[in-house]
Amino acid sequence: MYVILVYDMDKRRVGKMLKHCRCYLNWIQNSVFEGAISEVKLKEFLAGAKLIMNEETDSLIIFKSRQEGWLAKEVIGKEKNDLDHFI
Amino acid sequence: MYVILVYDMDKRRVGKMLKHCRCYLNWIQNSVFEGAISEVKLKEFLAGAKLIMNEETDSLIIFKSRQEGWLAKEVIGKEKNDLDHFI
Repeated sequence: MYVILVYDMDKRRVGKMLKHCRCYLNWIQNSVFEGAISEVKLKEFLAGAKLIMNEETDSLIIFKSRQEGWLAKEVIGKEKNDLDHFI
Repeated sequence: MYVILVYDMDKRRVGKMLKHCRCYLNWIQNSVFEGAISEVKLKEFLAGAKLIMNEETDSLIIFKSRQEGWLAKEVIGKEKNDLDHFI
């Protein structure tokens, strides 16, 4: 399965969530991640994410595609994730 | 075509880009939009977006899926776009 994940967290929790997402997916921009992930790993990720977030106020959206080939990605402007290693 | 769009703009340009995106797609969270759009409309959108953004520093990523059914969306926590009309 291929997923795109975006989150919107309170800034007190954003660092923790960023770190958690990076263990499972590739960071592409701001609060956006993508990557191939198994159903089991996604469940594990979500269980962890729910411990970090406040479900009353924070938000996490996951778009799932059964195959990566079903999604074409186009980047206009600067590719931000070339800085991935520096932050 | 169904698209997910995320942008990362300098705050001086973010308001303009938000407004531009809203003319073509549905806002779902922060700087994330989604929606069905034709190839022609997407080209029109991109032409406009390129006038707003600084391609050296800003970034716009579009994930395209030929069919909406190929993407499943899951929202955990608060659905932010119920505030769509208020901001």
